[in-house]
Order: sequence, then structure tokens, then C-alpha cells
Amino acid sequence: MKTGEQYLASLDDGRKVWFEGELVERIADHPILGRSAQLIAEGYDKVYDPTGDHSPFSDVPTDAAGLREHIDFVHDLGMLAHVTYTSIMTLLTAAGRIMDSCPEEVERINAFVARARAEDIRITQCITDAKGHRKVRPGQQEDPDSYVHVVERRDDGVVVRGAKLHITAASLGHELMVIPTKGMKPGEEDYAIACMIPVNAPGVKIVDVSYAPRHADTGTFPVSGPVSYPESFVILDDVFVPTERIFLDGQTKYATVFAHSLGLWERLGGLSSMADGADLLVGLAQLIAQANGTESVAHVRDKIDDMIIQATLIRASLEAAITHCHVGDNGAAFPDELYTNAGKYYAASHYDRLVQSLHDIAGGSIVTAPSLADLQNPEVGPAVRKYMQGNPEFDGETRLRLFHVIRDLTADTYGGWRLVTNIQAGGGLYAQKIVTRKWYPMESAVARAKELVGVPFAP
Amino acid sequence: MKTGEQYLASLDDGRKVWFEGELVERIADHPILGRSAQLIAEGYDKVYDPTGDHSPFSDVPTDAAGLREHIDFVHDLGMLAHVTYTSIMTLLTAAGRIMDSCPEEVERINAFVARARAEDIRITQCITDAKGHRKVRPGQQEDPDSYVHVVERRDDGVVVRGAKLHITAASLGHELMVIPTKGMKPGEEDYAIACMIPVNAPGVKIVDVSYAPRHADTGTFPVSGPVSYPESFVILDDVFVPTERIFLDGQTKYATVFAHSLGLWERLGGLSSMADGADLLVGLAQLIAQANGTESVAHVRDKIDDMIIQATLIRASLEAAITHCHVGDNGAAFPDELYTNAGKYYAASHYDRLVQSLHDIAGGSIVTAPSLADLQNPEVGPAVRKYMQGNPEFDGETRLRLFHVIRDLTADTYGGWRLVTNIQAGGGLYAQKIVTRKWYPMESAVARAKELVGVPFAP
Amino acid sequence: MKTGEQYLASLDDGRKVWFEGELVERIADHPILGRSAQLIAEGYDKVYDPTGDHSPFSDVPTDAAGLREHIDFVHDLGMLAHVTYTSIMTLLTAAGRIMDSCPEEVERINAFVARARAEDIRITQCITDAKGHRKVRPGQQEDPDSYVHVVERRDDGVVVRGAKLHITAASLGHELMVIPTKGMKPGEEDYAIACMIPVNAPGVKIVDVSYAPRHADTGTFPVSGPVSYPESFVILDDVFVPTERIFLDGQTKYATVFAHSLGLWERLGGLSSMADGADLLVGLAQLIAQANGTESVAHVRDKIDDMIIQATLIRASLEAAITHCHVGDNGAAFPDELYTNAGKYYAASHYDRLVQSLHDIAGGSIVTAPSLADLQNPEVGPAVRKYMQGNPEFDGETRLRLFHVIRDLTADTYGGWRLVTNIQAGGGLYAQKIVTRKWYPMESAVARAKELVGVPFAP
Amino acid sequence: MKTGEQYLASLDDGRKVWFEGELVERIADHPILGRSAQLIAEGYDKVYDPTGDHSPFSDVPTDAAGLREHIDFVHDLGMLAHVTYTSIMTLLTAAGRIMDSCPEEVERINAFVARARAEDIRITQCITDAKGHRKVRPGQQEDPDSYVHVVERRDDGVVVRGAKLHITAASLGHELMVIPTKGMKPGEEDYAIACMIPVNAPGVKIVDVSYAPRHADTGTFPVSGPVSYPESFVILDDVFVPTERIFLDGQTKYATVFAHSLGLWERLGGLSSMADGADLLVGLAQLIAQANGTESVAHVRDKIDDMIIQATLIRASLEAAITHCHVGDNGAAFPDELYTNAGKYYAASHYDRLVQSLHDIAGGSIVTAPSLADLQNPEVGPAVRKYMQGNPEFDGETRLRLFHVIRDLTADTYGGWRLVTNIQAGGGLYAQKIVTRKWYPMESAVARAKELVGVPFAP
Repeated sequence: MKTGEQYLASLDDGRKVWFEGELVERIADHPILGRSAQLIAEGYDKVYDPTGDHSPFSDVPTDAAGLREHIDFVHDLGMLAHVTYTSIMTLLTAAGRIMDSCPEEVERINAFVARARAEDIRITQCITDAKGHRKVRPGQQEDPDSYVHVVERRDDGVVVRGAKLHITAASLGHELMVIPTKGMKPGEEDYAIACMIPVNAPGVKIVDVSYAPRHADTGTFPVSGPVSYPESFVILDDVFVPTERIFLDGQTKYATVFAHSLGLWERLGGLSSMADGADLLVGLAQLIAQANGTESVAHVRDKIDDMIIQATLIRASLEAAITHCHVGDNGAAFPDELYTNAGKYYAASHYDRLVQSLHDIAGGSIVTAPSLADLQNPEVGPAVRKYMQGNPEFDGETRLRLFHVIRDLTADTYGGWRLVTNIQAGGGLYAQKIVTRKWYPMESAVARAKELVGVPFAP
Repeated sequence: MKTGEQYLASLDDGRKVWFEGELVERIADHPILGRSAQLIAEGYDKVYDPTGDHSPFSDVPTDAAGLREHIDFVHDLGMLAHVTYTSIMTLLTAAGRIMDSCPEEVERINAFVARARAEDIRITQCITDAKGHRKVRPGQQEDPDSYVHVVERRDDGVVVRGAKLHITAASLGHELMVIPTKGMKPGEEDYAIACMIPVNAPGVKIVDVSYAPRHADTGTFPVSGPVSYPESFVILDDVFVPTERIFLDGQTKYATVFAHSLGLWERLGGLSSMADGADLLVGLAQLIAQANGTESVAHVRDKIDDMIIQATLIRASLEAAITHCHVGDNGAAFPDELYTNAGKYYAASHYDRLVQSLHDIAGGSIVTAPSLADLQNPEVGPAVRKYMQGNPEFDGETRLRLFHVIRDLTADTYGGWRLVTNIQAGGGLYAQKIVTRKWYPMESAVARAKELVGVPFAP
Repeated sequence: MKTGEQYLASLDDGRKVWFEGELVERIADHPILGRSAQLIAEGYDKVYDPTGDHSPFSDVPTDAAGLREHIDFVHDLGMLAHVTYTSIMTLLTAAGRIMDSCPEEVERINAFVARARAEDIRITQCITDAKGHRKVRPGQQEDPDSYVHVVERRDDGVVVRGAKLHITAASLGHELMVIPTKGMKPGEEDYAIACMIPVNAPGVKIVDVSYAPRHADTGTFPVSGPVSYPESFVILDDVFVPTERIFLDGQTKYATVFAHSLGLWERLGGLSSMADGADLLVGLAQLIAQANGTESVAHVRDKIDDMIIQATLIRASLEAAITHCHVGDNGAAFPDELYTNAGKYYAASHYDRLVQSLHDIAGGSIVTAPSLADLQNPEVGPAVRKYMQGNPEFDGETRLRLFHVIRDLTADTYGGWRLVTNIQAGGGLYAQKIVTRKWYPMESAVARAKELVGVPFAP
Repeated sequence: MKTGEQYLASLDDGRKVWFEGELVERIADHPILGRSAQLIAEGYDKVYDPTGDHSPFSDVPTDAAGLREHIDFVHDLGMLAHVTYTSIMTLLTAAGRIMDSCPEEVERINAFVARARAEDIRITQCITDAKGHRKVRPGQQEDPDSYVHVVERRDDGVVVRGAKLHITAASLGHELMVIPTKGMKPGEEDYAIACMIPVNAPGVKIVDVSYAPRHADTGTFPVSGPVSYPESFVILDDVFVPTERIFLDGQTKYATVFAHSLGLWERLGGLSSMADGADLLVGLAQLIAQANGTESVAHVRDKIDDMIIQATLIRASLEAAITHCHVGDNGAAFPDELYTNAGKYYAASHYDRLVQSLHDIAGGSIVTAPSLADLQNPEVGPAVRKYMQGNPEFDGETRLRLFHVIRDLTADTYGGWRLVTNIQAGGGLYAQKIVTRKWYPMESAVARAKELVGVPFAP
């Protein structure tokens, strides 16, 4: 297992990362990326056990109770654990599904997972391609590199080219788990490629963006100031992948196996984090209503009630998904697809309603409250404190900070990031609908309907 | 235990029931009420066991598995089991809560429940009062009878007066479980009355209404034609209640105990029936889309997807309510209040959206399709069949019948009844919000919010 | 011009109409259809002017003020005026569009309109075909009669076969304006047929259905009892149409001209009637809240406020459609397509929300209130009146009647009819979207967006 | 009239403005506020007419056509014109309403308006007080300064204390129009104060915040980079107001006159700007769909259709408000209150739905697209351009810029500002409901409902 310090040192491996137009010298020293790396290092330290032989979050739950426990554990560790855990679960799930037809690849997967656990490395799943023209299939794009593909075959491996987008913190991990973003058809064999690529492999170039605040006064960003992660744009510029790191190559019929395995875990992660997020917004709404002195006003109560119901429905979906989990051939427990996807869709598509209620309850000071720096200014600070006080049980500074939390969380750079990623993570609203439909017991619903019609139906 | 025949005979006990302005001679012979009584009689026959000493649906579940099983069982038996089951559970739950302070009343309750089980009688909960002016408390109404109350006290009992509204099939049961509709304050002792009244007691008058079709051609009402239950307006015109049938009298602080106990069971019943109902609407939407030949049209699929997600969220709430059930002091398992209420609210307030999608997918023939009688007419029947055919895999008659099912279920007399009762059963949307809020873990949501603000809060 | 009596007599012309499986002897004497015919007769009497030479509602508005006046006028006359007015406007609008290419047909149209005005006859537009399998084009259906088409050509005319569905009160008019339901392609010439057919022409068979109540106690149906119209299923069983009554025959490129002309007027009619309908529901909500004594309760007020905003948006769309009306080549004023369609869509797709709010405010008595017959019964009538009283400013009978109005209008047979026709009239939600999009100034919206991007776009 | 240069010079008048904890030396030189001042200066130059005697936007429209023209004009000039125009209209409207009872004050108002027009000065309306505990009336707050009030009376004027919040760009104007935020009751005379205060008056202290980006790479903020305005927190620290600048002092019954006059103009401004904003989002959605190559995908089209309908309803409300405008006693035309408020409420409460659709259509690159600086980097720029290309008709840079426009406009600092201010401007959703209800013709809606009930109602 790695300590935080060992992790930070391991990033200094020649990787090529750009940020706002400039090459990053050393990640740990970068004003924005360095802070993110530090957070991950703290996660390493938190679970470090000098006697252990692998990180606890690479363990696999085998029943509903284990699944529930795991979700809590991953939550506590945040982004760090989530990414690696999801990657490993995806590999194992996929391995279970191609076991018979691709025994060699499965062996390579198992070997890699064993090494990854032993070396305690951080793996980032890289799925979404650049995609080019959405109307056109991968193999028929004007620019053949719109989807990652093999451009050269050698005795000891392949050379791949393309880009992977929307990859959270790819620049802060050790390995890129590159998998096809969608199904491939015969003739698209070169696009049916899944493999593992070290972040510092020659030809890998990462462009990072971040919602981290650039303001001098970071105190006014109580959420995104201390905690932020970059989003990576991963360019694979003719990268060589040795054979033992290839998990799929050319078997188009299995191209979706990895994506489907990933999807479920992504959406479970999304659902559980939105369940917590919804409760947090309820808490903020109640708190700011109290600080304003409006918590017993009828229409404010009514809005909070609506938020409560929404938050509870999201959690109910998560609970039902866990309660009705399934156990795969390899003994790993999976959440129920139907409840996971329906809950994820509902949470994503109604997140804006929670935010609207919170904003409506809180008021305009979300965007007009003076900064913390103003509060500290001797000439205007006392007046800011005085006039930011609402209900005298909350002092002015507390209410001011509360407004900054709400703004940073829901109406600012980080809020925008949440607004978008809540919808997009795990594949857009429409994709979520498609998957939900796939798992809905349509046959029995139709059977009930037929019964009511009461005449025999043609077979 | 009673057979169906014994049940039907038992209704011939001198009860006073009116229907559309006329006194009903004999319920079993009435063209509309007789049909409803027959349905209940069939339920008696279905569970009749000559060696049994009580009806199986008066058993009490003690854990999540038992609760889930019970729900299915009650579903199969329909309205019949639901009413009596709910009444008995309400009495037992309430008894558990007033055990210490009202030992005598609890003894009477237990004695009554024992007799009810032994004699296999049907009990109807009577909760909603006429209520008079909603702004005015029970004890201050212009008409003191707006809420049921004691008008005379005798050595051997009390005389009560008032009315109970929205009582499903009170005219078809044996006993009326009369309980206060809301909390009572000191000074309203006469209104804090809970008791059991035989349907044929002198002074009990019941006015029934029914959504049952009055059309000659009942085949065009495939849902409400064969199955309907009346709604009763129960008038208590100075009814004497002997002491052993009084379960609460004057203890205003316990006035809400019965209503709260009832509320939970009502809402669980409502939630589980709406979960089934939602799946049925999904099935009908899919079936009519196939019969029309539109099931793969993008916007039709999208609407069905929305219906699927909604149906799944309702079921997720039910599942979470059962999974997280609680066991009371008397060993009886109760569904979780928060999940039950949030789910019930969501299902009730979104039922109209399911119906809209179904109507939008099905088309105008829901209300313009010829009747089954027209189909049987030799002159126009063949043309009706011919032109009602859409996708040739479904013949014209099947599609015609499907439209009648949809109309009867969602857009006609019975549909209207469902539209209203889905919202009102268990107490209106606002009441459902209030109860949901009551059970939401607001403290922990607020704690999370405070944590994020990061400054200490005044205690 | 015709008097009401003359109109009623004119229906006795040998037409073939079926109702619930039986041939109707004489329409004026039929218990249900007779009532509808009587309503239309009253409309004839209302506008009858012994010195006039045509009905006032066949006049054509030429500007916004005229359009607004016409809408009010048509409203007052109800269904009667609407149908004929819409048919004549459709014919004139279509004539204006095919003037150059089909001069002969335009002449026939003008001649027919002149005669129709002179003889004061009632025309019913017949557009929707049976349609068969929705995935399959008209010319390729398994049953070629799924769309009305020419089956034989003679020197003096054509013979047509097929059916027209969802035709309100076709059995109560004089002429059927038969037009294609959608665009036709080369090869479908026989389906590009528009013509005028007398209701009593040999081969015309009409099957009527009606939401009119069948209850003995019609007082309990205060809305649909006195006013109801049938929906007709019109079968054209090899009907001969003489040449002078053919308005289009084989010119597939003009097949949609009539439908598009009709669509706009249908949707304007729908929009203006939904604007009134929404205000009516607001009024009912306010009134029942007062009768219950809850009109100042915060959540009730809030729901009424939501209803008010919705009703006002619908009316705003109507106002904007009239204000921005356009004048066609023939001098007739047309409402703006964009505002008409967007408003219609909004009103249709949100009607259920108005109904839900009304039901939530009113309470369960909508479906459980005793009948008016019960009120008149000497034994239970006084108790019904007593216990139906809420706020003492409204007596029990008034509140009881109010519940019956709400039930009949929104939750019963007639309510179901409204629920469905609000969505379907003028072509289903999806069709309404398509038309709205067609008229939206997308180019200027995109231009504004491009401006903001700030780089030149490829042409 | 003032030139832009004269305007900029006029700001150098000793005013006290703080930004992020620091006193601003000279506004025109400040990196963020200077940019905003420059924008206003450009507005001055745009309308400057060396021969004119007042700014054109201080003219008063007198009919619907004038009102419509004015809205367009004010739009072109943006924030600048809006604020002064609204202030002047508010003063004139209020003057018209207190003409009889406060003749002296009306004279002062007229004199001030005349001078303001002659000197071409910028007036900022200051309405919202700090408000303290929302449950407690102004006169009973623990801190009496929670609402602006008179703390001292002198022969030649009064001294006021308090704060005004959410004031857009108060630091960039010349005069603060201070008016009561709500009704005052007898005993609260000191709070019934309306007056005009120069920004540089002793005791005035302004704390500014701004959503302007702080990033080095401002090109990535194409909307808020070039155009931003600060929000001011205005502290009145014992400011002396001479008598001729007092417009109301102590007449509690007129305390709301100014606020009501302002409210209507605020909401009209809000409505017209949201109508334009909605069309812009439609345009962006269509453009990004084209750039992605998804504009003909069914579910994408459907979402754009929904956006179109919403945008059209907002504009319909604006159109109806203008068409049905009213002319006040002083000859000034006012938009219709009902349509203005209902439209504003709808637009504000549904803005999040437009944004959600746009995000759903656009995809995750809204928040993960590399910056413009990355595009210019020679090492990764070409790959960024290459992989950001979707539909080849749009080059990669154009699509990249489009994502930045969407992010900046809807999902970032400026997007958050819009999200909040769309709801809060003109007083929060609940306030908008209240005003809408006030103007709804409830009586006629109720009359229609009564008619349908058909029995006489108690008077």
C-alpha cells in the first residue's frame, strides 16, 4: 500500500499535463492541480495500513449488506476511492462476461487487477470518445480518429490514436483504463479496443480544466476552494500498448461489455451521491430559512416539504436498488439495474427543482452578499456583519457564510459543474431512460393489461 | 368463519340504506349494491376454511418479509380484506399506544377484536366527519353536529350524533369503527369519542352513491361493470352505544391516536395499490401503442419511458418502506413512515401525468370508439371491427375493447373516481406533506449543512 | 335562413344512425340524440333573422378586432356555430391556396359555399381516417380502406369507401366535408380525395356514442345532463359523389391543403375554449374553497394562485395570437400560428394540473356526495343538507350542487371526455409541437446565438 | 446631455466604494469595476446628441405602440438605460398617486426629475432593506436599523441610517433613489421615508461584488468577460438628506406607493429580458445540436420543441401585457399588471427547465472543454481543435467557443447570477404570485362557476 507522500512522489513520472495553455512542471506544486493531488494523498493516508496488502476499497461486496457498507465507505473517501473502485469492479464484471470467449484477455485482466491491488495504484476509467459527427458511425467518420482506434499492429502490441473526454482527474492517476464508448459493428474491428495505458506513456497528453476559484479571497468559496478536482481531456497521440495490457482487440461483439459494466457502477455512484446531495440541499434550505426567520412561513414550509419528498424518493430508489441487488457468477453483488437507473434519472432531471426551491427560499443575497474579505475590512466589516443578520439567533457572519456556501454549491462555478455533471454523468438523460426501459418488467405489465381487456391475444 | 352465502344472509338485518333517493329493500337484490355484495361474498368463499377459527387476513405480520407477503395477499382479496385488515391493525396499534393510560378501553378493544376474528365479521373504519366550516374548531361550529359527538350519557352507554363521510362500502359491512377525525382540545371532550357501532343499530342511516355504470350495454364498461363498490355517507342519528363498545370517551389527548394509526395503514394500502396501478397503466400504454402500430415511434417510446420511471419510483418507495419497517411494542411490523408518505404523495400528485401520457399515446378513440353493442349489430358491426383495426396483429375487436378498458379505467365515471380518490385517500396532498415532513430526519440534514458552513452555530 | 323547427324537420331525411347497437328511428325523438338536436335547433332560433340571407357566423373577419369579436360570438353559440364556421373557413382558406392550380375545383367550392350560406345548412368536417397500422403508408395498408379512397370512377362522379372517426355530431348536420387526413404521395392518387357528401347519401352509416348520463337522476349531472353532443363514427360504404361535389381528386401535392387550413381554425377554437375553461376552473376552485371555509388557508391560496397563472398564460397566448393575426390573400384574418399552437399545447398538456388542483382543494365529496334525489328524500334529505354544509354562508344544497358540477365537469363521464379531447382535438400533443416548431422564428434565435459565439460560421 | 467621457469623469467625486475588502481608488481604473463603468460610458455616447436637452430614454410612452418601441430601445442600451428609466417612471407614477395628499412632495419630485433629465444623470433605485428577522415588523426589530429610517430631524432635513441590498451598480450611478421596501404601520413613521441621496454624500458606503471572471484567460468567458455589472451593498451611515430631496416622510399610508410603482416596471423589464433570454437559449440549443450533429435526433428535437413552446408563452405574456396596456392619469402608458406578473412568474419559475434542456442537448463538454488558451498552445492546440469537432460543417474552434458561451451563460459564475436573479428580481416567486392574484378577475371567474351551479347564492 502507498502512503500519501509516496503517491505524490509517484506523480513526478514525466507525465505531460497542460492547464490553461501551459505545460505543468510538477503537479504537486501547481496552485490548482496541487491542491487536488493533496486531497487524494490524504485519502491514501486515511486507509493506509502498514500491514495490509491491498487497499480496502478494492474489496468486493457479496450481498446487500456489503453493498450498503461499501457505498458509505466510498462516500467517506470521495472521488479518490470511487474512481479506482469503479474501474476494478468494471474489469471484474466484464471479465465474468467474456470468460468463455476471450480466456486469454481475462487472464490479462486478472493479472493486471492483482498487480493494481498489490501496488495500490489509482486507475481512471476513460470511456467517452471525441465522437465527431453524432450522426455518423465510428468507422465512417470524416476524421477516423474521432473514436480511439488501432493505427498500427506490431508483434508485441498495438499503437492507438484518438482522445477521451470528460475524464475526471486522469492527470492525477497512474493508469488509464481505455474502453470503447459504444457498440462496434463488423468492419470496425480497430475500434473494438480496450486496454490499460500508463499516464506517463509516450504520446499521452492531458489538458486539464477546473472549476476551482481563481479569486484572491478563497474564503468566499467554502466548498470549491478547499475541494476541487480537474476534468481531463486525454489525447492519445500514437501510444504504444504492449500485448499484456490489451483486454479486447477486434472482437466487436464484446465492445459494449466494458461500457455496460461501467455504466451500472457509475450510476450507482451517481445515485448515492445525489441522495446525499439532496439531503444536503434540504438541510441548507431549512438552515437559511431559520437564519432569515421564515422557517414557519407557509409557502416556505411547503417548498421545503417538496424538497423533502424529492430527497426521500431518491433515497428510496437507492434503498430498493440495494435491497434487490443481484449476485453475479463471480460472487460480486450488483445493485438492481431498474431501481438504480430510474432513481438516477429522477434525481438528475429534478436536481434543478431542488436548486430553484433553495434559491427561492434563500433570497438574492446568494449572489449579492459581500465577500469574506469585506467582512474583515475594519471600515465596512462591522456594517456588513450588522446588516447581514436576520433572525438574531444566527449572527451576521454565519448567515453571510451560509449564503456563500449556497452560491458556491449551486449558483457559481462549482454549482454549474454540478448542474451539468448531475445530468451528464453516466450518460445523459436519454441514455438513462433507455437503460431503465431495458430493465423494466414490461412483459408482466402488459400481461396485467391484457388480463383486463379480457379477450385472447394473438400469440 | 363465514361462507359467502352466510355473509350475504347476514346483511339482511334491518339496516337502513338509501340509493339515489330510494330506500334499499334487500341489498343482495339491488341491481348495483347487490353486485358489490356478491364480490365480497366471493372473497369470503375464497379464504373459507371449515377447520379455521379466523380469517387469514386478520393475522399480524411481524417483519419485513411478513409485511411484503401480507400486502400481496390483501391485494388479491381486494377491497374486502383491506378494510377489515386496516381496522383491526388500527385498533391493535392504537391499543398499544394507550395501554398505560386507558387500560379498561384496551381491554374492550381486545375483547372486540377477539370476537370479530371469531365471528369473521367485516369492519369499516369511519373517520372523516362532515367538518362544517373548515376555519372553525369542532367545539365551536355553528352546528355542533358537524363532528360526531356524545349528546347524552346514560348509565350503560352514550348516545352519539353526527355523520361520517367518504366511507367505502359501509353499507356492506357489519360494524362501523367510529373514531375522531382530528385532535381535540380540552373543552371538546364530547368529541373525543371512539366506538364500534353495528350497521343495523337504530339511528344509523346510510346513503350510498356508486360509480357503477347505468348503461344497458355494460360490456362497454369492462372495469367498473363487473367490479364496483359504493361510497357511503353515514348518518348517526342519536345512536346508542353500550359501554363495552366505547374505546375512547373524553380523553382529548388521545383523540388522534386512532387516526394516526389508521393513517399509516391507509397510506400503505394506497401506496401499494398505486404501485400496481402505475404498472398497469404502463402495460396499457405499451399494448395500445402496439395495437396502433406506434410502439417504436420515438416520442411514443419516450412517453412510455417516462411512465416506466414514474412507476418504478413509486415501487421503490414501497420497497424502501417495507425494507426499513419497524416493529412496535406489540410485535406488529409497521412500514416506515417517511418512505410510505413520500411515495404516496409522489404517486398521488403525479397520477394525472401517467393518465395524460396514456391518453396521448392511445388517441381520441378512448372516448369515441363505438360500443360493444354496436360491434354485435349485424349491419354496422363488421364495419366497426374492420375500421377499429390498427396493427393487423391485433384484431379490431381487441383494439376496441382496449379503448374501453382505458376509458373506463381513466376517463370515465370510474376513472374520475380514481382520479379523485388517488389524491384524497389518506388525507389530501397537503396532509401527506405534513406527515412526510414529520418523519424526515431534518436534524441530520441540517447538521450536514452546518458542517459545510464551517462556523460554530449558537446552540 | 332556417328556424329551429325547420332544422329539426330537416334531419328526418332517411339518414342511417346507430346508437348502442340500435338503429335510430327518428333523431328528434331519441332520448339522448334528440336532446343534442334540440340544442342545435335553439342555436338556429337564436340567430334567426327573417330578413337575413345567411347566418351571421358564416361571415369572415378581416382584422384583429373582427377576429376577437368572432371568437366571442362563436363561443356564445357553442358547438353549433363552431363546426360550420370552421368548415367554411377551411374551404375558403384552402380555395385561396389552390386557386391557380385547380381553378375548376375552386369554382365548385365557391358554388357550394354560396349554396350552404343561402340554405343555412350545417356542415361537419370529417378528417381523421381509421388509419389502420400507423407504421404503414395509406397506399400500402393491408386493408386498402383504412384511409378513405376512390374505389370506382364514373362519368358523372366517383365512388368512395372508408371511414372517418372522432367526428363530433356528424349525425346532426346536413353535409360531411370529407378531406384527406394527411399528405399523399405519388401512387396514392385515389386517396387524395376531398368532397362534400350529404349525411343521407346512400352508403353513409353513422355510429354515435355519447358521454350523456344514463342515470335516472339527471339533476346530479348539472353539466352533461342538459348539454351533450354525440361523437360519430362515419362509415362510407361505397358512396357515390357527383362531380360538382368533388373539391380535390388525385392531385396528391395538395392533399394537405385542406387539413392545414382546418388545423389552424381547430386549434384556435380549442385555445379560446380552453382559455374560458381554465377561468371556469379557477372560479370553481375559489368557490368551493369558500364553501369549505378554506379560501384563506395558505396552501389553498397557493394552489389557486398557480391556477390563476396558468389560466392567464393560456389567455395571453390567445391574445397574442389575435393581436398578431395575419390577413390572407382573400382578405380573411388568420390568427398567428406560433402563438396559437404554443398556447394550445400548453393548455392541453397542463389541463390535468388545473384539475388536480381543483380536486385537491375541493376534497373527496366530489365523488362521494349523495345525489340530488337523496336530497329530496324526506327521510335522509334533511341530514344530507345539514351535513353537506361547510362555511355557513353557503347552504348545504349549494355546496352539494357545487360538488356535482365539479364531478360532472372534471371527474366523470363528461370530465373524461374533456380530459381526452383537450389533448386530442387538433391532433395530439406531438402534432401540436410539430406545428409550433414550424412557425417558430428559429433563424433569428440561432442568429442571436451565433452573435454571442462571436466567430464567423460556415455558410 | 453627457458624453461617455464626462460620465466617467463624474464618478471621480469622492465616493466610497469597496471591492473584495479594499477601498477602490478610482473606479475607472479598477480592473473589474472600470470595465463596467466603461460599458455605461459607451451607452452615454450611443445616445449622445449635442443638440438634445435630455436623454431619449427618459421620454414617457403613452400607448401600446410607444411601450413596445421603448422596450426595444431600452433593450439595446441594456442595464444602463433600464435603471434610470425605471427610476424616473417610478417617481412619476408615484407622484401621480400621491398628488392630492402630498402636493409639496410631488413638487419636489417633479423638480428633481426635471434636473435629472437636464443633467443626464444616472439614478439607481434602492429598495430592498437588510430586513433583519423576517418574522418581525420593521418597527419592532431588535436592531432598529434593519430597515432604513430617520434617526434625527433637523430644520433643513433629516439624517437616515440603514442599508439597501441587491442594488445593481449603485456605485456607478449618481443618485440613489431610496424608497421603503414594504408597507409601514402607524408607529413606524420614521421608516416611511423616500428620498434621493447622491452617491458621494458623506456616510454613504458601498460594498461591491461581481460575477466577472478572475481568470487570466478571459477569452474562455465570452459573455461575462466583456460585459458585467457589480451588485452593490449600500450602507447609509447617518446620511443627511436636505428637505428638497425628501419625497415621503412619515406618511405611512403611502409607504408602498413607490414600491408598487417600481414593481410593475421592474417586472416588465424582467419579462421582456426573459423573453429575449429564452429565445437565445433556443438558438443556442439548436446551434449546439447542429454542431454535435444531433439536431434531427427525435428526443433532441422534442426537447427543443419544449423550449420553443416555453419561449413563445413568455413572449405571448409580454405581447398581451403591451396590447392591453393602460394609460394613467398623467398620460403614461403602463403594461397590464395581470399578464406582466403571470408571465414573469412563469418565466422565472421555468428558467431552470430551459437550462436543463440546453445542458442535456449540449453534453458534458460544457464544463470539460479545454480553454481558449489551450487552443492557442502549439503542442496541444491542434489536437484540441481536432477532437472538439463534431459535425464537420462546424470547425472545432467554433464548437469549443459555443460550449464556453453556454457554460458562461448558464453554468458558471454568470450563469449562477442569472439563475438567482431570474427568480429574485422583482421580488421572489411568492411575491409574484401575490401580485398576479391581485390583478386576476376573480369575480368574473366565480360568476361563471356560480352560473353553472345554477342555484342562487347568498349575497
